[in-house]
Amino acid sequence: MAQKPSVPRGTRDFSPAEMLRRNYIFDIIRRTFSIYGYLPLETPAMENLSTLLGKYGEEGDRLIFRILNSGDFLSGLEPSALAGADSASLASRFSEKGLRYDLTVPFARYVVQHRDEISFPFRRYQIQPVWRADKPQKGRYREFFQCDADVIGSDSLLNEFELIRIIDRVFSELKINVLINVNNRKILAGIAATAGAGDRITDITVAIDKLEKLGSEGVRQELLQRGITPDVIRRLDPFLSLRGSAEEKMTGLKREIAASQEGLKGISEMEELFSYLGMEPSQARVELDLSLARGLNYYTGTIIEVKAADMAIGSICGGGRYDDLTGIFGLPGVSGVGVSFGADRIYDVMLHLGLFPEQTGASTEALVINFGRDELPEQIKITAALREAGIATELFPDAVRLKKQFSYADAQHIPLVIIAGSEEIKASQATVRNMKTGKQTTVSLSALPEFISEAKNR
Amino acid sequence: MAQKPSVPRGTRDFSPAEMLRRNYIFDIIRRTFSIYGYLPLETPAMENLSTLLGKYGEEGDRLIFRILNSGDFLSGLEPSALAGADSASLASRFSEKGLRYDLTVPFARYVVQHRDEISFPFRRYQIQPVWRADKPQKGRYREFFQCDADVIGSDSLLNEFELIRIIDRVFSELKINVLINVNNRKILAGIAATAGAGDRITDITVAIDKLEKLGSEGVRQELLQRGITPDVIRRLDPFLSLRGSAEEKMTGLKREIAASQEGLKGISEMEELFSYLGMEPSQARVELDLSLARGLNYYTGTIIEVKAADMAIGSICGGGRYDDLTGIFGLPGVSGVGVSFGADRIYDVMLHLGLFPEQTGASTEALVINFGRDELPEQIKITAALREAGIATELFPDAVRLKKQFSYADAQHIPLVIIAGSEEIKASQATVRNMKTGKQTTVSLSALPEFISEAKNR
Repeated sequence: MAQKPSVPRGTRDFSPAEMLRRNYIFDIIRRTFSIYGYLPLETPAMENLSTLLGKYGEEGDRLIFRILNSGDFLSGLEPSALAGADSASLASRFSEKGLRYDLTVPFARYVVQHRDEISFPFRRYQIQPVWRADKPQKGRYREFFQCDADVIGSDSLLNEFELIRIIDRVFSELKINVLINVNNRKILAGIAATAGAGDRITDITVAIDKLEKLGSEGVRQELLQRGITPDVIRRLDPFLSLRGSAEEKMTGLKREIAASQEGLKGISEMEELFSYLGMEPSQARVELDLSLARGLNYYTGTIIEVKAADMAIGSICGGGRYDDLTGIFGLPGVSGVGVSFGADRIYDVMLHLGLFPEQTGASTEALVINFGRDELPEQIKITAALREAGIATELFPDAVRLKKQFSYADAQHIPLVIIAGSEEIKASQATVRNMKTGKQTTVSLSALPEFISEAKNR
Repeated sequence: MAQKPSVPRGTRDFSPAEMLRRNYIFDIIRRTFSIYGYLPLETPAMENLSTLLGKYGEEGDRLIFRILNSGDFLSGLEPSALAGADSASLASRFSEKGLRYDLTVPFARYVVQHRDEISFPFRRYQIQPVWRADKPQKGRYREFFQCDADVIGSDSLLNEFELIRIIDRVFSELKINVLINVNNRKILAGIAATAGAGDRITDITVAIDKLEKLGSEGVRQELLQRGITPDVIRRLDPFLSLRGSAEEKMTGLKREIAASQEGLKGISEMEELFSYLGMEPSQARVELDLSLARGLNYYTGTIIEVKAADMAIGSICGGGRYDDLTGIFGLPGVSGVGVSFGADRIYDVMLHLGLFPEQTGASTEALVINFGRDELPEQIKITAALREAGIATELFPDAVRLKKQFSYADAQHIPLVIIAGSEEIKASQATVRNMKTGKQTTVSLSALPEFISEAKNR
């Protein structure tokens, strides 16, 4: 026999059982986005390379999957151009399109392209796969799904507030306990400036970001290694030791970075955000985490990160405010803020903690046994009546041995089997077998749909 | 200003308004598949070229989008290999993966790869985009969606019957009047054999397929042009003139092709299928159309085609039985049957005939006016209460002029606007403005969610 076919490295099939569980997650996210007034958007899998390149840094450019031009892609190329070429320059001759790398850049491209049709503030959500030519490893795939909600064209911190409400609602519906950490890039800039190293914000925040892992002393070592002078490190000290509630931290901060206008602006933004959170408290704890420093390449204000409380798996959702996303496409001065849910990690958390409801494991609720030609008209009628009542039902297509039909129901986790042989049909009845308990109940044919609906909801 | 960015030729963005309409179609198709016991499956956008190539004919191979190997794809290639190469042979050195061209081949690959985990008969549905490097034109895209349901591992014609029931239910829920035409490849083979040209089945059926367009005389000319001898054409004559119901046609056919075992098998299959259709009649007319000859490369039994009755747009759904789909991947002898809904054409039909329900145009149901800081706590409360009641609600994020907030509601087709300024709040009331009629109603804050829910369902 031939070798079994397979999928490309880093990609996955989603079996029916996995799909049902994934849809459970996606449905809750989608419903929540929609309740908060976000509207669905989809963009093509392929984008022009001019849209994608230069948006994700050098490393990102390298990780974009490129699509070979169709037809005769060599036409117009001199043989000599081929002979001495390197991969990178040749790739740009062969290829004009690439696969979507994230949902943010296509969104920015969409907003600029359709700005005349859009009413701002524009709230959209987008749930689609993205592709990255990363080295595949456990939990890291070359095709994975992002679930993004962004609002563009409004500076208001009410947007941040509502995105945190969305996060809270999604995870509380999924029954995942989370910690929501927030910070503000302007505060980080204020800290760096106060310490006398405003130009070293990235090195400083990358080191501070490791506070939880390395402790204060470890962070000091890390800062030294990054060439931050002992003087600056000493001035950073008070920030590393700030403790307490968001309010307490901000009171301390205001004193320390009083000289930085930008830093004070960051604090006042966070105060406003926490005042909104006070008006409608969330289920999850929301903390001001001064060491939170993700996405500093593009975030300009609020930074948000969500971690599962009961499993160490890194961030399962994150986001922030970016002041000039569409500027790269020629539409400057439009502020946006968004969050992105990591569907794959959320899936792993739910599986690990056993949080999927049992019924997501099977979507077909009843199997009608096929007894063959003579009983078929009645079995078709039974099947039709159940479907009419909204019950996902199969009629076994072949009149094979009962044992085989029962094994099928078992393997497919179909909870109920309807047995209506000639004797039952004569009595206008059917026997319903609960595949889990083995219990059999005789039900009149007319009452069958109602009986199954009730059994299903129990 | 820079040039507006755009999407690659033949691809599309789906705006929120389009997404809501598309999801209306997808939801009905998905729900129907599920009620009939089909389970969701998804496969990766990329497949190995070894999976894709050679499955769609020479033309198909040419239309597959290929993905450039990541990293240094030139490594191991001699410069001399580059200099003299043509596009096709070079492509195979640079590229090991391609984008999914349809959903059927990935499904066959999945079944073979996972055959030890699958219980047969395996019913799956799959709704995903596919990509083809076709020349874009009106109604033909390089990225488009297919909605497939297939059952594999059962010969029973009950499967065909149920797929026709699915077609009938989907289009009746979408309110599209359709004609469902069926035929059987074995009958076509029987006709060709009876006419003495069994080896010319493709030429004969391609010509007969034009009966509706060209009439009997036109078909005779077409057959002549294809090199079919006048003798054979004369013997085809009785088939071209068969009229009447499926039963009448089959009675006539049985007489004409009595000598073809294969042809008689085809007729008996169709008789069985029509007997099932008699047990549970469909809303749409199901006809035996002897000129239906689609997919002859792979269909081996039943052939199904669906056309909109009220708009000339070609086939909007089609399918059939294939006896050896998984054979190409090393698992022979497994019969399958499936149908595929063409989402893009269905969308066009619905738009053209005005069949989308009005509410698919907007998903956000209420906008709460933002009066600024002082009233904000109350407005956050109102917004939260509406969302709690399942009403998709926006709180305008900025306290800008009322006029601007109303224009936004208008542009976004948000039907209801909630006005709760300081006066209203003092009286524990809000004013609800119906944006369509302009009618304003004063409602107590506690009754607001119920009022909006009722207004929404009216």
